Amino acid sequence: MTDTNANRMWGGRFQMSPSEIMEDINVSIEFDKRMAFEDIAGSKAHAAMLAAQGIIGAEDAKAISEGLDRILGEIERGEFEYSRALEDVHMNIESRLKEMIGEPAGRLHTARSRNDQVATDFRLYIRACIDAFDVALRNLQHALATKAAAHAGTIMPGFTHLQPAQPVTFGHHLLAYVEMLARDRGRFADARKRLNECPLGAAALAGTSFPINRHATAETLGFDRPTANSLDSVSDRDFALETLSAATICALHLSRFAEEIVIWSTPQFGFIKLSDRFTTGSSIMPQKRNPDAAELCRAKVGRIAAALQSLAMVMKGLPLAYSKDMQEDKEVTFDALDSFRLVVAAMAGMVEDMEPVPATMHAAAGAGYSTATDLADWLVRELNLPFRQAHHVTGAIVATAERRGVALENLTLDEMQAVENRITKAVFSVLSVENSVKSRSSYGGTAPQNVAKTAADWVARLETEANSG
Amino acid sequence: MTDTNANRMWGGRFQMSPSEIMEDINVSIEFDKRMAFEDIAGSKAHAAMLAAQGIIGAEDAKAISEGLDRILGEIERGEFEYSRALEDVHMNIESRLKEMIGEPAGRLHTARSRNDQVATDFRLYIRACIDAFDVALRNLQHALATKAAAHAGTIMPGFTHLQPAQPVTFGHHLLAYVEMLARDRGRFADARKRLNECPLGAAALAGTSFPINRHATAETLGFDRPTANSLDSVSDRDFALETLSAATICALHLSRFAEEIVIWSTPQFGFIKLSDRFTTGSSIMPQKRNPDAAELCRAKVGRIAAALQSLAMVMKGLPLAYSKDMQEDKEVTFDALDSFRLVVAAMAGMVEDMEPVPATMHAAAGAGYSTATDLADWLVRELNLPFRQAHHVTGAIVATAERRGVALENLTLDEMQAVENRITKAVFSVLSVENSVKSRSSYGGTAPQNVAKTAADWVARLETEANSG
Amino acid sequence: MTDTNANRMWGGRFQMSPSEIMEDINVSIEFDKRMAFEDIAGSKAHAAMLAAQGIIGAEDAKAISEGLDRILGEIERGEFEYSRALEDVHMNIESRLKEMIGEPAGRLHTARSRNDQVATDFRLYIRACIDAFDVALRNLQHALATKAAAHAGTIMPGFTHLQPAQPVTFGHHLLAYVEMLARDRGRFADARKRLNECPLGAAALAGTSFPINRHATAETLGFDRPTANSLDSVSDRDFALETLSAATICALHLSRFAEEIVIWSTPQFGFIKLSDRFTTGSSIMPQKRNPDAAELCRAKVGRIAAALQSLAMVMKGLPLAYSKDMQEDKEVTFDALDSFRLVVAAMAGMVEDMEPVPATMHAAAGAGYSTATDLADWLVRELNLPFRQAHHVTGAIVATAERRGVALENLTLDEMQAVENRITKAVFSVLSVENSVKSRSSYGGTAPQNVAKTAADWVARLETEANSG
Amino acid sequence: MTDTNANRMWGGRFQMSPSEIMEDINVSIEFDKRMAFEDIAGSKAHAAMLAAQGIIGAEDAKAISEGLDRILGEIERGEFEYSRALEDVHMNIESRLKEMIGEPAGRLHTARSRNDQVATDFRLYIRACIDAFDVALRNLQHALATKAAAHAGTIMPGFTHLQPAQPVTFGHHLLAYVEMLARDRGRFADARKRLNECPLGAAALAGTSFPINRHATAETLGFDRPTANSLDSVSDRDFALETLSAATICALHLSRFAEEIVIWSTPQFGFIKLSDRFTTGSSIMPQKRNPDAAELCRAKVGRIAAALQSLAMVMKGLPLAYSKDMQEDKEVTFDALDSFRLVVAAMAGMVEDMEPVPATMHAAAGAGYSTATDLADWLVRELNLPFRQAHHVTGAIVATAERRGVALENLTLDEMQAVENRITKAVFSVLSVENSVKSRSSYGGTAPQNVAKTAADWVARLETEANSG
Repeated sequence: MTDTNANRMWGGRFQMSPSEIMEDINVSIEFDKRMAFEDIAGSKAHAAMLAAQGIIGAEDAKAISEGLDRILGEIERGEFEYSRALEDVHMNIESRLKEMIGEPAGRLHTARSRNDQVATDFRLYIRACIDAFDVALRNLQHALATKAAAHAGTIMPGFTHLQPAQPVTFGHHLLAYVEMLARDRGRFADARKRLNECPLGAAALAGTSFPINRHATAETLGFDRPTANSLDSVSDRDFALETLSAATICALHLSRFAEEIVIWSTPQFGFIKLSDRFTTGSSIMPQKRNPDAAELCRAKVGRIAAALQSLAMVMKGLPLAYSKDMQEDKEVTFDALDSFRLVVAAMAGMVEDMEPVPATMHAAAGAGYSTATDLADWLVRELNLPFRQAHHVTGAIVATAERRGVALENLTLDEMQAVENRITKAVFSVLSVENSVKSRSSYGGTAPQNVAKTAADWVARLETEANSG
Repeated sequence: MTDTNANRMWGGRFQMSPSEIMEDINVSIEFDKRMAFEDIAGSKAHAAMLAAQGIIGAEDAKAISEGLDRILGEIERGEFEYSRALEDVHMNIESRLKEMIGEPAGRLHTARSRNDQVATDFRLYIRACIDAFDVALRNLQHALATKAAAHAGTIMPGFTHLQPAQPVTFGHHLLAYVEMLARDRGRFADARKRLNECPLGAAALAGTSFPINRHATAETLGFDRPTANSLDSVSDRDFALETLSAATICALHLSRFAEEIVIWSTPQFGFIKLSDRFTTGSSIMPQKRNPDAAELCRAKVGRIAAALQSLAMVMKGLPLAYSKDMQEDKEVTFDALDSFRLVVAAMAGMVEDMEPVPATMHAAAGAGYSTATDLADWLVRELNLPFRQAHHVTGAIVATAERRGVALENLTLDEMQAVENRITKAVFSVLSVENSVKSRSSYGGTAPQNVAKTAADWVARLETEANSG
Repeated sequence: MTDTNANRMWGGRFQMSPSEIMEDINVSIEFDKRMAFEDIAGSKAHAAMLAAQGIIGAEDAKAISEGLDRILGEIERGEFEYSRALEDVHMNIESRLKEMIGEPAGRLHTARSRNDQVATDFRLYIRACIDAFDVALRNLQHALATKAAAHAGTIMPGFTHLQPAQPVTFGHHLLAYVEMLARDRGRFADARKRLNECPLGAAALAGTSFPINRHATAETLGFDRPTANSLDSVSDRDFALETLSAATICALHLSRFAEEIVIWSTPQFGFIKLSDRFTTGSSIMPQKRNPDAAELCRAKVGRIAAALQSLAMVMKGLPLAYSKDMQEDKEVTFDALDSFRLVVAAMAGMVEDMEPVPATMHAAAGAGYSTATDLADWLVRELNLPFRQAHHVTGAIVATAERRGVALENLTLDEMQAVENRITKAVFSVLSVENSVKSRSSYGGTAPQNVAKTAADWVARLETEANSG
Repeated sequence: MTDTNANRMWGGRFQMSPSEIMEDINVSIEFDKRMAFEDIAGSKAHAAMLAAQGIIGAEDAKAISEGLDRILGEIERGEFEYSRALEDVHMNIESRLKEMIGEPAGRLHTARSRNDQVATDFRLYIRACIDAFDVALRNLQHALATKAAAHAGTIMPGFTHLQPAQPVTFGHHLLAYVEMLARDRGRFADARKRLNECPLGAAALAGTSFPINRHATAETLGFDRPTANSLDSVSDRDFALETLSAATICALHLSRFAEEIVIWSTPQFGFIKLSDRFTTGSSIMPQKRNPDAAELCRAKVGRIAAALQSLAMVMKGLPLAYSKDMQEDKEVTFDALDSFRLVVAAMAGMVEDMEPVPATMHAAAGAGYSTATDLADWLVRELNLPFRQAHHVTGAIVATAERRGVALENLTLDEMQAVENRITKAVFSVLSVENSVKSRSSYGGTAPQNVAKTAADWVARLETEANSG
């Protein structure tokens, strides 16, 4: 059975000839065809520059440009036929161009090489991803901030060690992710800034003797400037690594929220209800809602982080300039960025649809003597106890409450005074979860008035950005 | 431009509706259809057992089995139409079965669940890969051992720190990889042994109340036994991790050989000539042979190791039993095993075609006083110097040779005696690279007689294995 | 401030001289001194063999052996002074030996090199770790199986997607980990088998011209045989990679249990109580028990998996034979194995101390219509409905129960018959969680009688092993 | 033997009691004591703010501040005794403070928690590292640019696939790394910008009810502003991940240069001579120079990349806010940043000491028809051939030269004209390596005049930076 299966698995190719093996390991068209649009944009810019510099004739440039536009149309309409024999997207397009326009097609590759061409295409592709991510992350921030504004005062337990520690508000919790995402967007923006230099014209590795104008092609393609060293231009992929790193860190943030969604939507927690749209049901248990989308978002970070690790391992110890190893840069990057796109979109959808269950959250927030810190702080503030001593006194009072099986605010004043006789009835004002969160009005604290203002500020800022973007 | 590009990139799906997002992140048919054969084999075994146990009728079982065979035919002929709406390979096949045979199709899923079904399919798939790898690795060992036999006495420099250290033979160097691959095959065999237990019948997670016979299905599918715990059966993927680990370690071994191929085929080293079949030329520099296949083999380890890391990260901290995160197990595993298959096949092809350049190797072996250790050993053996002192004396003699700009064997006896006066002319017998390698006849040493015997033994053993396999 | 801090951080060494930099990056004594015992054992075996073969004199061998024993004593008593100037553990010990016994010390290094010496030491060290792990993992299995035996019938929810799916028993859940650990022990045992070949005598890389007896040293040091190829002997580290891989997979298993412990010990779940010994309290909230040990066990897998990845990246693309890169093999391996040891020990302690809360588990097991599958199976078994149809009928009944807000077993027969009129009152027998688990008596299923037997078998087997071990 | 060894290995702790296990896994003082200076700085800033806000008395604040200064002195003098029983650096210092000044020490922890304290310390520590790295990387750039200026016209082969492709200059090659390092410094600077917000005052997770002034402590500690969300402040470690990512990418760059150093310093290449200071010799082969420092630099990237992966895996899926898992953030980060520091310092030393061998480089640059592209470009430029056709013609001419066994410039004009009859003798001007590099004067190209100017610009810019820094 085994042999048959193995053959099936790889299309019977286990008895491959050397040329089949070489084709399988060497051909990139199956994945680099994704960069067809970028490749055409780069070629058009290059041809226009060559003509402007008098390196090729205006007629040739026109024929090239028009031919490339026709190819673009073929690709958009799904009519373009990619050939494995032509190996990569660059040769597929150039070869089709030659079919269309004949000899002038042979002039397009003047003063460039596949090395600078692919580096340019890949940068353009990643730049477009970054731009799309920025919009998607802004949308996710907006969904979070909008929900935060609506729940600035919805009380839930704040956890440490997944044990309730102190009450916070649901809005405050959501805004924590808005902050993380702001830094994530900053990382993408910084990566974009650094990658936005144009390698076109670096040629194979040494530059060229043709009188090209690299600043012109850079400008046409929306780059800030040409790259400054031709060897570096064709041999580095740090822009991909940096983008994957930004995606990994952001996906880690979202894996944490995904875990919370999974936990919060258990019957045991019951803090939120997910919509049908991001859960799967069971025809046998119609009440069941499996948080599939959240689980997949949690899992995808494994793949995104692994893409970073994969490309790092590929690049380790490669001598300059181009080595064929670097062809392994694209598939993992494409796969990771696709996954990342889905994670961000799914999280935004889940946030929008998510319904908190305030009563359950509130009940949980009050359990576990979660206002003990408030009591301790009161002792410091009102009785001038040193914090460490206040901490100790509070422990004794909580122990009393625990023995009695009541909440802190249900102890009598006498019971409290038995521990520390200077306590007054004023203490009760700090023991409710409402007062607890209200009091945490320090900068960045969970007080509803803080949260409401910060959420509103974020919503406004994000909408301004969206309108001006 | 950006927006347009981003839309192009992901087929305009950036404005996806929630249901589109969910479909994109949730659907697995695009990759799990690879396991269609395994799925059908598993279903046939299950149906036969259900009938044998009287859980379903014999007629129903026959209809199911024949239907599944027809589906198999459709798949093999490329006629089967997979539907994204049916999400995965299991539902695609069951749904087609229902179209074909009606109600009995609905009895197939008795006493099983998608959780044990997918675990069974995935194990069968990986097992088939392991079996195919074993043959491929044996072929690679055979190519190496055959070449080693032919070059048991071909002298080359043995390197440490990529600096020539002592002469070895090319055959000895190749046999080092035969040893590594033997351990690699052992790792795959051990992984196979551990994975070869059948999860079918674990059902969703708890087992079933039907009187199934798990030993029967296990046997039909070539498993050694059924798995012993139903929760474990549906929630672990350690068999995939272990297989990826074996592939990673083996790919690391091959990355080292690939690096040597790249270095040896530079004009500076010139130790080997690669065939056209695993290199790419340049139409402009017809003499150029870029070692593309070797570079790609070197790079692929990044991807294989990353697959291991990816799945590890996915599995980290998942509560039992099945979580949807685990759907992320397949794509990375499939991709890594595909890559591994190509690496092994390409390496075997390169080894077969590779031609060493003995004269260049020999010249390099003699440079750099590479027989200094032989001199030191002579001093220990013949003059009874402690090794550390012999080492010191040798250093002084080499320094003399270096000052004179000659090889060790071209020093005069007087010059040697000036350093250590008990040296006799017998010393010259150990200073040639030929005598150096000949003398290294300790078990596992590089002496040509050792190498010839070991290579012959390996060739014979591998051919016996292949014939009996 | 910055400059000062940076200087403080690295002991003012930011203005290091080249020799200081070189020392810092090159010296290994700070970590390889861990292998002092292995180094001495290897040297003693080597010296005895040299004497037996007549390569050194019996007197010298005796002096060496006694000297090494004295050094061992110094190390055990903490009196040995390691010197950074001597770089590594091998030279530290040889140098001390020379101080003690003079010239014969210089004969110890005959027919060996630091390359085979360090490979031998590192294998011995890892082998000892594996042996220790086997005992520790057996202890952990024993703790789990013992607890499983006590809770073979304690009902808890079985989860998928962290949503209650079907009832299982706590004992069954624990035994899932016993199975995983059995495979983990198998992986370590297989790794041990493969590493247990002795590289001593491979010398620098090519073997030696001295008439050594590698089988003798291998036997003395407890190896199964000498390694077969001298180049391979000094240049591979796959034994470390394989051991790290086994540790990673096992640590992943334990990270899952750790996550369950964290979740189960929340007030929301309340399934278990952890002991004070593996939790930290809060002086202010005396009832609080943070599951620190479980969290740390969950986290450590990051470090262990990263050690594997680190060594893989180090080894990638290294030409044979020894390169200095390989000095980076030890620190990460030592650190990962230390972490692994702690994780296993802490988990065993936590399991022993852990107290389940059966009432809470039981209540949770019954929630969420978790016996719906039992109902569907009854419909198949008793009414001969096809499974898919039974599934559909069950869904309709559950929907009725949900509308009524009652458990399945609290529906009336009429209500059930309104959906499927052939249902009889016999159906009620399968709707309780007790009957549900009892019925899952298929091989590997969760039925208490299964679990009790399997747990007892494991306890007996593990105790037999321990007694014979 | 095994048991004994295992016990030795871990100090006999395999029979550890639960409390010993818990201590071993839980205690952090052994690594977090590195942050003692940061901890003291943070505490001083906090105490001063508390006093300024009237939360503690001025006398108490003074006592605290003076006590902390005395502790700082004790630490600097190596007199401070760390206690494992006190678990971490924070409690060690607070406890010593209490010994010194009594009750006021208990007031220091008012309005803060260990969660915001450790986040502050860790940020301060990493910030200091980043600042130190910036100086070290600038020094390395300076060493490279200075050497590039000296070798702006030193011709060497430019490689692709490690095969000579086109001539470049050594200075140009070195400047490629200057560019990479400029981006690396940019990444660190961006990471610093993002981390430079102060979490102090976030307290446990929710903020505080004390009227603290977070802007004041932020300013005192050199932060740009306080963090904006208290939950985010204590639960994220993206600043560490981003710094590790920047270090990984930079270390990858340096691993490539390290590989080149290893290859270039083989006798086969012979492009450079390394100094004794960063190589190790062999007492037996005095001419041998093993490039140990370069090999270690190449290897260290494995560890640095693994630290990133490790922390990513630790953080994956952690619910907010603080979980004990996060204690695993520091050791790997410290280790990676230590390694990174050494790699940068060692590379700077190697670059300064490295001596190129221009004659060898030049000879290699001319081999392999490396000016074939120049010939093709000439055909395009002078004969107006389309590039693809010129490429084809060049191939035919090179084939002729290869058959004749001569360099391109040693073909006769007749031989060239036999392939393309319009070729004139003017063609010979482009066939020497000198003219080849001279002609590559496009922006970023390898022409010596470009390289000289760029190198001089870099040296000037870096010196200006250093003087103003």
